[in-house]
This record gives sequence, C-alpha cells and structure tokens, in this order.
Amino acid sequence: MVGFIGLGRMGRPMASNLCRKGFRLVVNDVNPAAVQELESLQARAAADAAEVAGQSGIIVTMLPNSAVVREVVAGPGGILANAEPGSLVMDMSTVSPETTDELAAAARERGIGFVDAPVGRLASHADRGESLFMVGASEADFARVKPLLEGMGSTIYHCGPVGSGTRTKLVNNYLAVTSCQLNAEALGLSQRLGLDLERTLEVLYGTTAVNGQLKIAWPNKVLAGDIEPGFTIDLAHKDLTLVSEAAHAARVPMPILAAAREAFSTARARGFGTKDFSAMVDALCDLAGIEKPRLRR
Amino acid sequence: MVGFIGLGRMGRPMASNLCRKGFRLVVNDVNPAAVQELESLQARAAADAAEVAGQSGIIVTMLPNSAVVREVVAGPGGILANAEPGSLVMDMSTVSPETTDELAAAARERGIGFVDAPVGRLASHADRGESLFMVGASEADFARVKPLLEGMGSTIYHCGPVGSGTRTKLVNNYLAVTSCQLNAEALGLSQRLGLDLERTLEVLYGTTAVNGQLKIAWPNKVLAGDIEPGFTIDLAHKDLTLVSEAAHAARVPMPILAAAREAFSTARARGFGTKDFSAMVDALCDLAGIEKPRLRR
Amino acid sequence: MVGFIGLGRMGRPMASNLCRKGFRLVVNDVNPAAVQELESLQARAAADAAEVAGQSGIIVTMLPNSAVVREVVAGPGGILANAEPGSLVMDMSTVSPETTDELAAAARERGIGFVDAPVGRLASHADRGESLFMVGASEADFARVKPLLEGMGSTIYHCGPVGSGTRTKLVNNYLAVTSCQLNAEALGLSQRLGLDLERTLEVLYGTTAVNGQLKIAWPNKVLAGDIEPGFTIDLAHKDLTLVSEAAHAARVPMPILAAAREAFSTARARGFGTKDFSAMVDALCDLAGIEKPRLRR
Amino acid sequence: MVGFIGLGRMGRPMASNLCRKGFRLVVNDVNPAAVQELESLQARAAADAAEVAGQSGIIVTMLPNSAVVREVVAGPGGILANAEPGSLVMDMSTVSPETTDELAAAARERGIGFVDAPVGRLASHADRGESLFMVGASEADFARVKPLLEGMGSTIYHCGPVGSGTRTKLVNNYLAVTSCQLNAEALGLSQRLGLDLERTLEVLYGTTAVNGQLKIAWPNKVLAGDIEPGFTIDLAHKDLTLVSEAAHAARVPMPILAAAREAFSTARARGFGTKDFSAMVDALCDLAGIEKPRLRR
Repeated sequence: MVGFIGLGRMGRPMASNLCRKGFRLVVNDVNPAAVQELESLQARAAADAAEVAGQSGIIVTMLPNSAVVREVVAGPGGILANAEPGSLVMDMSTVSPETTDELAAAARERGIGFVDAPVGRLASHADRGESLFMVGASEADFARVKPLLEGMGSTIYHCGPVGSGTRTKLVNNYLAVTSCQLNAEALGLSQRLGLDLERTLEVLYGTTAVNGQLKIAWPNKVLAGDIEPGFTIDLAHKDLTLVSEAAHAARVPMPILAAAREAFSTARARGFGTKDFSAMVDALCDLAGIEKPRLRR
Repeated sequence: MVGFIGLGRMGRPMASNLCRKGFRLVVNDVNPAAVQELESLQARAAADAAEVAGQSGIIVTMLPNSAVVREVVAGPGGILANAEPGSLVMDMSTVSPETTDELAAAARERGIGFVDAPVGRLASHADRGESLFMVGASEADFARVKPLLEGMGSTIYHCGPVGSGTRTKLVNNYLAVTSCQLNAEALGLSQRLGLDLERTLEVLYGTTAVNGQLKIAWPNKVLAGDIEPGFTIDLAHKDLTLVSEAAHAARVPMPILAAAREAFSTARARGFGTKDFSAMVDALCDLAGIEKPRLRR
Repeated sequence: MVGFIGLGRMGRPMASNLCRKGFRLVVNDVNPAAVQELESLQARAAADAAEVAGQSGIIVTMLPNSAVVREVVAGPGGILANAEPGSLVMDMSTVSPETTDELAAAARERGIGFVDAPVGRLASHADRGESLFMVGASEADFARVKPLLEGMGSTIYHCGPVGSGTRTKLVNNYLAVTSCQLNAEALGLSQRLGLDLERTLEVLYGTTAVNGQLKIAWPNKVLAGDIEPGFTIDLAHKDLTLVSEAAHAARVPMPILAAAREAFSTARARGFGTKDFSAMVDALCDLAGIEKPRLRR
Repeated sequence: MVGFIGLGRMGRPMASNLCRKGFRLVVNDVNPAAVQELESLQARAAADAAEVAGQSGIIVTMLPNSAVVREVVAGPGGILANAEPGSLVMDMSTVSPETTDELAAAARERGIGFVDAPVGRLASHADRGESLFMVGASEADFARVKPLLEGMGSTIYHCGPVGSGTRTKLVNNYLAVTSCQLNAEALGLSQRLGLDLERTLEVLYGTTAVNGQLKIAWPNKVLAGDIEPGFTIDLAHKDLTLVSEAAHAARVPMPILAAAREAFSTARARGFGTKDFSAMVDALCDLAGIEKPRLRR
C-alpha cells in the first residue's frame, strides 16, 4: 500500500495518476473534497497521518511548506512516530535543504528510509502525468520509489544522495525564476527603445542570449578549465555600461543589470578582466572560497 | 570600391573575407601591420579616413568605441567631410544608440546613407566568416549592404530602420552577458551545496532553466497576453526566498538573486502576485510606463 | 521577585546591574558559570524556566534567537505554562515581529502581560548600565517595567503597543547596519581616488552626508509634506551617474550605489524627477501602496 | 577683473554676491535676462567666453555639465585659447574627475592656473552667500581664489591638489543622495509596520542610525585600525536577515537592503564575520585591492 498525504493542486493529480495506473493508495488531506475525489478512484481514506503511516510501505508527502512537512513527518502523531521500520518516506514538497536533512536524519534513527523528490514543471504537467522529478536517494531507495515516480511523471533525475533533490531544485528554480526578471528587463528596454518585438525575439532566439551560455558555450570553456578569452570580462563590462547608459536615459529600471554590472566590476578588480566572460563563475568561486566547477573528462 | 576603416581583432578578418570573396577594398588603420596584411590580399592602402572616403561608394567602420567612431565619421578630415553624396557609411562598431542617431543625422544632412550593423558572436566566428549582424537600415540601404554582409557573416538580421541594429545589440548582449553572472551564482551555489556538477547540468539542460523561458514559455503566455497562472509570482517569490536562505546560510554572495527577489517583491506589492510568473515583464512595464510587449497574431 | 532567563554577553551585565541596584532576582541559564556570577551578586539560581516563572512577578528573557525564545516562553515546561495570571513577561531578545506577536497573543490568552523591549547599543554599554531600550507595551505594562529598564539602561523609548519595540529595532538597525556598507563604499572610493582621509572626513562631517538628511533636512521637507525641490531627484540621479562612472573606471564595486541608482531611475520613471530628493520616500510609498509618512503638526 | 561664465540657478546668486561685496566682474551667459541682472549690479557684459577670458585674471565657470565645461574652457574660441598666461580658471561646475584632470592639464600647458571648486549645499544657500566649497588647488592657487570663495560661501574646504574638489564632491554626494533611498526604505518599512512616525524618528535621532557611524563610531574603531568586535558582522548580517524577512512579508521593496545583505554575506565568506561591523570597509578594500583607510595618529 502507498500512503499519500497532501492532495492540493499538485498532490491531487499526482495521486490520481497513481490510482489510475493501478497503485493501491491510502490518502489523507485537510480538504474532504480532495479526499473524496481520490476515493472515487478507489483510494482508501485515512483519518490522519498516523493511520496512513501505519498502513503503508511507502508514504508520499506533498505539502505546502517546510513547517507543515516537519509537523506531518516528525511531529507527535506524525509519520515517523507511526510507520514501521523498513518503510520509506518520500517527501515531494518544496522545502529547505535544512528541513530535508533534519527529517532524513530523524527517519534514519527510526530505521525508516527517506527520499526527497521535489517536482519540476507546472500543475498542468502533473495533470497529464508529465512531471519532472529531482530525486535525492540512495541507490536502493531510488530503485524502490522509481516505479511510483514513473507513475506520476515523465522525466526522472537521480541527483545524488538524500538531500540532493531539494538542493538541485533550488538551483534549477533559481535560474528559471530569475530568468523572468532578466527577460522582463530586456523586453522592457526593447519596448522603450522602440524595437519591433517580433524581430527582436527572432534575433534573441538565434544567439546564445536565449539558447543558453550554460548549455552551449560553457562546457567547452570554463567548465573544461579553459578561460582564455573568446570574449573578455572587460568587453562584457563595457557592453553592460552601454546598456546601463541607455537604460538610465530611457528611465527603464533594471536592477538585475545594476547588480550584474557590479559583479563584473568586482571580477575586474580581482584580476579576471582579461579572461573569458564564462570565467565569471571562477571569479565568484574565488571570491567566496568555493571550489571551481569543472567537468570530469 | 569598398572602404574599410578599422582593422583590429574583428575588422581584420572581416575585411580579409571581403577581399577573398572578390570585393575591391581601400583600407586604413593606425596599425601598419594590419594594413600590410590586407595589402597582401590586394586591398589598397589609404593614408587616412579622408582618402578612404573619397574613393569609396560604401565605407565600413569597425572601431573601438563611440568617441573614435564620432571622430572618424563626423570629425574634421573624417568620412562625412570627404565622401560623395550618394555614398553610404556602414558602422559596425559597438556604440551607444545616441552616437548612431547623431551620425545618421549628420550623414543625412550631407546626402550620405547610414547603416548601423553591429556584430554578434566572437572573433573566432569572424575569422571563419560566420559572424551574425544586427542591421538597422532603410529597405533600400539594406539591399545595398547585404552582399557585403553576406561576404563577412552567415546570419543577417534586418532589425528595422537606422538605429535598430545598435539597439538590438544592446538588448541581446544584455541577456548574453548577464546570463554569465546568473549562471555563476547558480553553479557557485551548486558547488557549495555539494551537488554533482554533471548531474546538476543534466537537470538544468532538461528544464526551462536553460532552455529559456523567453523562447519556450513566453510566446504562449505573457507575450500572447495570457497571464493566468501556470506558476504564480507569489510562488516564484517563495522559491527565491528559499534560495536566499540557503545562499546566506552557505555564504554564497548572489547579488542577482537579491535584486531579482526585490523585483518580485515589488511586483507583489503592485498586485501581480497571483499572475503567471511570465507577467514579471508586465509588472516592470506597468511600473515604468512602458507599453506591454505583445506579439502580433 | 524578578525572573531573568538568558545570561549571555548582554543578559549577564543587565541582570548584574539589576542585582546591584537592589532588585531581587531568580535566574536561569544553560551556562553554570554565568549563573554562579549572578549568585555571587545575591541572585537565586533556578533549575529551569518553569521554576523561574513560578517565583516571579516579572520574567525577563534575553535569548539568542526567535526559536529559543519561542521554546522558553511558549514551549512545554516554559514560562507561560508555569507563570501566575497577572504576571508579566518582558522579552528583550532580538526576534522577528511575528514571534513577538505570537508570544504576546499566547500570553494574553493566559492572562499574562507581555512587553517587547529589545536593546540598542553595544555590550559595552550594557556593562555600564547605559543601554537603550525600544519598548512595545501598553501604558500600564510600561509603567510596570520602567523601574527595571531604568536599572539596566540610560535611554528608554516607549515606541507604542506590544510589538512596537521589536519593529522599531528592525527599522533602527536597518539604518545603522546598512550605513556601514554605505560608508564602506564611500571610503573605498575615496581611497581609490587618492583623496586624503582626514580632509575627506572633515568635509563629510560638515555636510548633510553624515549629519543625516533624516534628522536635519527631512522634517521640514517631505515629512512636512513639502516636496518642492531644494535639490531635485533628477539632479541627484545625475550625481549618482557621475559617481557610477568614476567607480567603474576605478574598479570599486559599489552595490549599494547600483541599487540606489535604479531606485532613482524608478522614481524618475514614475514622475518624481522634478521633486525634492527627500521625496524618494514618497516614490517608494507610492510604488508599494504604503501611506506616505507625514509628521503631525 | 574677475570673469564669471554661467549665470544659472547657482551661478547668478554667486556672481551677484561677488558684485555686492565689491568685486569687479565681467560676465557672460546664454540667457540675456541673467546678464542684465548682473549688469544692474555693475558687472560688465562680455559678448562671449573669449572676451571674458581676455579681460580677467581669474575666470570662474559655473556650467551645467562636463560637455559644456569642456567646450567653454578648452574649445576653439574658449577660455584657454584667449586667456593670458598667468591667469587662472576656477571651475565650480559638477563634472567628472576625468574632465577636471584634462582641463587642468590643458591649462598647465598654456601656463594658466586651474582650480576645481564644486559647490555643496543648495541654491537657497547660494542666495544667502552660505555655500560650501570643496576646493582642489595648489597652495598658491588656493590662496589666490580664497577671497572670491569667501565672497560666495561660508564654508571652504581645501581638499588637496587640483582634482581633489571634484573627487571629494563625488564621495560626499554619494553619501548624501544614497541616504535618501536608505531613509526611504526605513520609513517605508516603518509605515507598513504600523509604527508611529514621531516616536520612530525620536528613537532614530537618538541612536547611531542617524547620528552617523562614520562620525561617531568609526574614528575609534576601523579607522583607528581596531576591528575587534563591539558588534560583529555576523550579528549585523543576522539583523539584516530579520529585516529582510519582515520586508518581504510586508511587501516593501528594499533594494538597498538586498544589496547590503549580499555585501555582508561576501564579507562573511571572506572571513570578516567575527570582526566589528565597521570592518565592512576593510572587507571592501580587501576585495578590490584598495589600501585600507586609516587615520594618521
């Protein structure tokens, strides 16, 4: 039996897909309507987390935030207090790495497995069983939850040991979310400068601006340890200065531009000016005492 | 005859490619070695910009910055003072939009055409004749310079009237350059969190984090006028808060994150919290009194 | 009897000063040495928070963070569970406003008073009984704790009802702490520009740069509702642009400058450019839907 | 005879005060009304800058920006081309240090003295002859212009050799202008948190928040080389985190806070966490390879 606690906008379609694919579920949620919907798909309703835990070999949690997850998993009357040794908790909520680490440690103490598997993509993907999962788990635990994950999504990444899923999601969502403000500034400036939107996008789609430095350029430059300049940090800084002048003249607030320009200024002050602009990651790692990222060959 | 002034790291291979493809060039540069290299390809050397201008129907400039371009094009003894009415200046340098506008106006007064065609991609692309050009020109002028551009590059975008090339390059380079700091922060955090670089990149390459919101998600969301939430600004802000907590705990300085988080906070304060996160561009345009970007249908 | 829980770097001298001024204390801390020090001043040692609470009319807490305060005040075996109705808890720790509000509500439910009175100034001031306190309390509760506060400090501000002390401290420390980075950027730039430190400070000490806009200029300008320009936001923005150019030329990273310049750009985009530069606060309040600050006359 | 070029909002009252105090002036401005006003005070009107230069031992310029100053001082038909060797130009405009340095060098070549003396304080101070001047000049040149400066203002700082006035003004205005946004964020947050404005200001006026770390605390801490902690950077960072949480919960955009918090995070990553919070200036100087500021004893 698979336990499933948390039937919100994401949890409900995920649990539903499991039911449809033949898994037997015992579910719980604060919202009776959501529970009834799952009951109509042959899931069994449990009165609380304790009851779910007592009946399940694997218990999935999909809850709104770190505090609720802590309460449901590790609180009195929660999962860990009621699950059998040898069972496994898979938390799919978006929580802090610290929360994941604490719960995994608490589970380990009780002989219970723990997997963090937060969800990428949108609710509409969850509806269609096309979610992406970033999974932190031992090899054995990953093998154990894989069929379940395949029942809910179409892309599954095993990111490393417990805690890696949550951490990878942070890095991933940082890029995806911050891109929105970056794009907002670029298009805001473009509009104010009177450029044609269609033509501008056509150009952006054809360059590394959108195709992604990280995917196309970096693996053969800084991530391979090559920071000889294709385009120097000094020249990149000069470009940002031109953009900054244009933006201020046009009264387009571009806070990301401003922050990025200071970062390039810092890199120049620290001797990276003549290196390739992908070496911005070396500049940051050098600054903060972090090991530089290099691909294994 | 085609004039070419400015034979630096970019100008030299561009001019060389024109010679190899059969164009007859008259060239000038402060560096005699560069001039000799072009002479060996049958280009004629001129003593100064005035002499180049006097002998050419189209004069190309590829110079280091706005001040030098102004001097060479509009200064005493410069191109405009010596070129024939009906000739055309194509500036391919990276300059401010203001510079382009002033020079285009000065050229117009003298009955001389003007095109701005700054270069995308790197010097190594220029070597191979694979540059990308963003061109601002009237239709007639664009037709006139197109053969030359095809002699130097492989991708040519006509961005709109004079001044559009320079402006598009600003927007394009803003995205490309700032992406480096964004990626630097993401990978710096990833390293500090102990994630495996190869596995992390595999995930990032498979999501919109790198594929680009702008290309994949936005045309059917905000740019089509649809800001109903797939993923809300409120949730995106919550994610940035989790990243911020993790980054500060790990002592990874992430200035772009910090600036982006304030932008999301601003958007929320202005009532965009429940909209799709692509509506960050609407929030910015609303803030600054800019027309919202919408694709023609 | 006065209870005192938390005898760290701040709590110890505060409690000691109370003892010396004749208050009878019952104290508790995790560090036995600290407790012994207080015992040598005639304080009584209690085994735990419960015992302190049971013996005291007023219980003071001075603890390291929100989580510990919650545990000691509202946890099982904590103060609220063991104090008499009619007693009063005064939390002097630096905690989040949310924590203060929750604890005050929990105390109210049990008929126990609550005061938040975080500490300004440094540990060395606490040693000398010269602390500053920002107090959130009803008039009656304030009267009740005032003698204690006068036993520990020399400057006591009654900021408003419960919760006001914590909130005022946030605002106060925001200014004090952020000033350090602002000063760091100013002096870093000054050094790089080769200015004489003594002479530069002499100038800064003689202008509103350091004397403080907020104290000298603002009460008669924006806070009095007068935003007619003495010095416009447009001119202030122009000055920041000059500073930015100088800083980037000199490779001095100035992230506060960069963020401030975008804020001025935003204010200009929203029509505040011709107003007095003190109207930056109106621009921010307008942006975020906050009531503009105006002094009562 | 004293030349005065530039009779705008600042120049007019400054020149008028000189006339009233008995100096004989020859003036020029693009605005005839301003010239007539000075003529009514017995100043002589000159047709252009050349005529002013030819008749004056000292020529004062008070012009709107770097470009105009360059034109009037060093352009063809400008001051340097027409002034006698041994005369002196005093530029009081707000310009870039680079402009000052170039003009001073050009003046030197022609045997003409040069002083930069930009103005602090507001137009209303200029009206009353209460301006503040930051002067860059040799000792001899300073002695020569001092009577003039005393005729126009009440506070005169000799900041060092030529160029020091302009540079000191940049540093000074950076602090004064950025303080506005800092104060805006503090009061915006205060308003949103529901604090009483009068009481909050009373507290802020009583602490180092407004009195100024730079004047009160720093000379005996970091500027004296003492970075042993009164209040550590780690604790200051913790405070900024509390403020950040409160601001984001309250939806108050605080970009300076965000940038400052990253700067503290950087300082912590580089090992300054346990130092006094005034050591933020050491952290920045260390980062950028700038000599640390220390007062002479």
